[in-house]
Amino acid sequence: MEQNRPRVVILGAGFGGLWTARALKRASVDVTLIDRNNFHTFLPLLYQVGAAELEPFAIARPVRTILRGQKNARFVQATVLGIDLASKLVRCDRGVHGYDYLVVALGTVAYDFGVPGVREHAFPLKTLEDGITLRSSVLAKFERASGESDAARRHATLGFLVIGGGPTGVEYAGALAELIRGPMAEDYPDVVDDASITLIEASDRLLGAMPERLSAYALRRLDRMGVATRVGSTVRRVTPEGVMVQTTGGEEELVVGNTVAWTGGVRGAPEIAGSGLPLTADGRIDVGPTLQVDRHPEVFVVGDLVRLADTDRQLPQLCQPAMQGGEHAARAILSLERGSAPARFRYRDKGIMAVIGRNAAAASVAGRSFTGFFAWCLWLGIHIAYLIGFRNRFAVLLNWAWDYLFFERSARILIPLRVRAPLWPDRPGD
Amino acid sequence: MEQNRPRVVILGAGFGGLWTARALKRASVDVTLIDRNNFHTFLPLLYQVGAAELEPFAIARPVRTILRGQKNARFVQATVLGIDLASKLVRCDRGVHGYDYLVVALGTVAYDFGVPGVREHAFPLKTLEDGITLRSSVLAKFERASGESDAARRHATLGFLVIGGGPTGVEYAGALAELIRGPMAEDYPDVVDDASITLIEASDRLLGAMPERLSAYALRRLDRMGVATRVGSTVRRVTPEGVMVQTTGGEEELVVGNTVAWTGGVRGAPEIAGSGLPLTADGRIDVGPTLQVDRHPEVFVVGDLVRLADTDRQLPQLCQPAMQGGEHAARAILSLERGSAPARFRYRDKGIMAVIGRNAAAASVAGRSFTGFFAWCLWLGIHIAYLIGFRNRFAVLLNWAWDYLFFERSARILIPLRVRAPLWPDRPGD
Repeated sequence: MEQNRPRVVILGAGFGGLWTARALKRASVDVTLIDRNNFHTFLPLLYQVGAAELEPFAIARPVRTILRGQKNARFVQATVLGIDLASKLVRCDRGVHGYDYLVVALGTVAYDFGVPGVREHAFPLKTLEDGITLRSSVLAKFERASGESDAARRHATLGFLVIGGGPTGVEYAGALAELIRGPMAEDYPDVVDDASITLIEASDRLLGAMPERLSAYALRRLDRMGVATRVGSTVRRVTPEGVMVQTTGGEEELVVGNTVAWTGGVRGAPEIAGSGLPLTADGRIDVGPTLQVDRHPEVFVVGDLVRLADTDRQLPQLCQPAMQGGEHAARAILSLERGSAPARFRYRDKGIMAVIGRNAAAASVAGRSFTGFFAWCLWLGIHIAYLIGFRNRFAVLLNWAWDYLFFERSARILIPLRVRAPLWPDRPGD
Repeated sequence: MEQNRPRVVILGAGFGGLWTARALKRASVDVTLIDRNNFHTFLPLLYQVGAAELEPFAIARPVRTILRGQKNARFVQATVLGIDLASKLVRCDRGVHGYDYLVVALGTVAYDFGVPGVREHAFPLKTLEDGITLRSSVLAKFERASGESDAARRHATLGFLVIGGGPTGVEYAGALAELIRGPMAEDYPDVVDDASITLIEASDRLLGAMPERLSAYALRRLDRMGVATRVGSTVRRVTPEGVMVQTTGGEEELVVGNTVAWTGGVRGAPEIAGSGLPLTADGRIDVGPTLQVDRHPEVFVVGDLVRLADTDRQLPQLCQPAMQGGEHAARAILSLERGSAPARFRYRDKGIMAVIGRNAAAASVAGRSFTGFFAWCLWLGIHIAYLIGFRNRFAVLLNWAWDYLFFERSARILIPLRVRAPLWPDRPGD
């Protein structure tokens, strides 16, 4: 590294952090990108890993490989322990990193809202590790059920409950339905009829961020795929037997199922607690319209952690705001270096979509709604386009497309790493 | 299942067990195949998983998927707890299985010969789990070294020691050398020069089962790839710092390296201990020339567990003897059903080979030795041919071939499953 070049430290190698680093490629700065994993995860397809549709490796790529050829960037695999805003230092488990500019892109972690039993019995679906663990649990249930002579127990063993009717919950329920109707029906013909999937949502409709027409469409599609949807059902607790829900009428009812996937809530990454950054109640960071932190113009926040203080608005939890935020932060840093004020961050909304099975999706783009096969093609096209940029190798892409389209994968291998219990991040204050 | 058909229970879904089951496809018997994993592992390529050359999923396939369409076979994922020869029962963690014929194909497990420190500090390479764990350890060392300012510690961190100069050790050392000279050199240019690989063998040459010419060839090839080979070096103990060896001259010497892979020894699977089967000192099973157990003609042994009592001969620990043994056991069972005596098992030796890097191999076939690119093509051809039968999908094969030949894989992802310590099977008597 050259002396006296400004040091930009980026925390997190998700879309926000990575796009910040890439946008600084030709800048006269030294970039240090820190992540606890040595890889970037393509989170939009994580639900496919959780449903054993895709191999875990297909959605991950080493950060160093992505940054190959970017001379001004280095990667450090480390866990952030704390941020010292006064001294402009980030403390990690493997050393301390001083910065002139800090970009906080640590994202969010699964959060249980304190609902009893969630941490003990429900599987989060926020990290590659989560995807692998959930996937193993799903696959193991079929093996267990096939040796079970008691019909009620078989039914409970193969009851899959998905909590949260947002895009992740809808996509995961759809993918599970395809796993079960496809390869599981072939490999476990004797027990597959005992399998059931229930999607549980507290509000009165699925895909609350999309127009109502799309909610109704998702409900119909899932129903046709055999997924039971329970809207207006608030989760009261999770037990080894299933999920106790309270309906809008006030009654409590046990939904039976031994595998519970939690897509019900997130909060800001725990690493930023205690740093003095202005945190919101859900652990995000209040930032100004330029994505800078008040009284710390050298600190930027991008991605899921952002809460725009002036509008009290939260950007959608998608790749697009994170990528655009990263590019914005990079430009703003260069503005500050030139002595000019950074521009306001303007999010160019590219829409939101959820795929429901292998040939249907719901998309809301530029105020218009799309459904069905056309929306699915849109979804596929967008992901293929991004994956090309992301993975940079046509063969790998082809591979993914082939696996995805023809459903032939060895992804149903039950990895024998003795990890079975849900792995939850520390609770704030733990 | 139909009543009164003979029940054939097969323990182990390796090459021996699987080939037994497949050879019984059209027979009027009920086959139960039991394995602790839900998948079959293509062990000849396991070393590539351990060297992060291949993704773990590429060499595994669900047993149920392999057996799809075989009406008379069912699969049970269970751990064998014991065999009751008198009552003709196999006790598992998930139920008891009575048999009329038993085929024991449980193979071998890594064994440390009681050398101190091996179980604590050396990684076995016998199962898919081992491959994943070793691979994670290797990858993590590069991340750790890149943050290490002390040159001696960096050198120790990137010292890779491979114990055992048989085919697995030679192949693994060669694959590691390619990993380091290839993607690691690109991703860790600052520390890659500190990496070293040492292959340690107690006898006076590598590949002891092959002609001397091939041993010399392997030594030269590895040397050219930067692998240091120490023959005539007996491992006295393994420590966190490295391996203490004793040379033929009697001196002890510490070979420094923080990652130790153990390919140095195996013994019979621990599940058969206490069953009353005639075990050899190394935990294998003495069988007659028909692969039947003395006084238990209903029990067959196939694969790595076989020790032919009359000749005191052990078959090579390869797929070929296991597959041929499985087919033999199936034919023998049908002979017994017809009331005739089973034939002797005759192993048709198809040769032995070891690949050394991406374009060279040593092969000994029908008394002739082959080396170099030609031998490697032979190796590639044989594996492709088997994988076609095994995986049954041209696309998957292409995939493997592409990944293998062009070395572009995401296999360098450090799976964040919190398993880092070597996982050893229980010691006999534990």
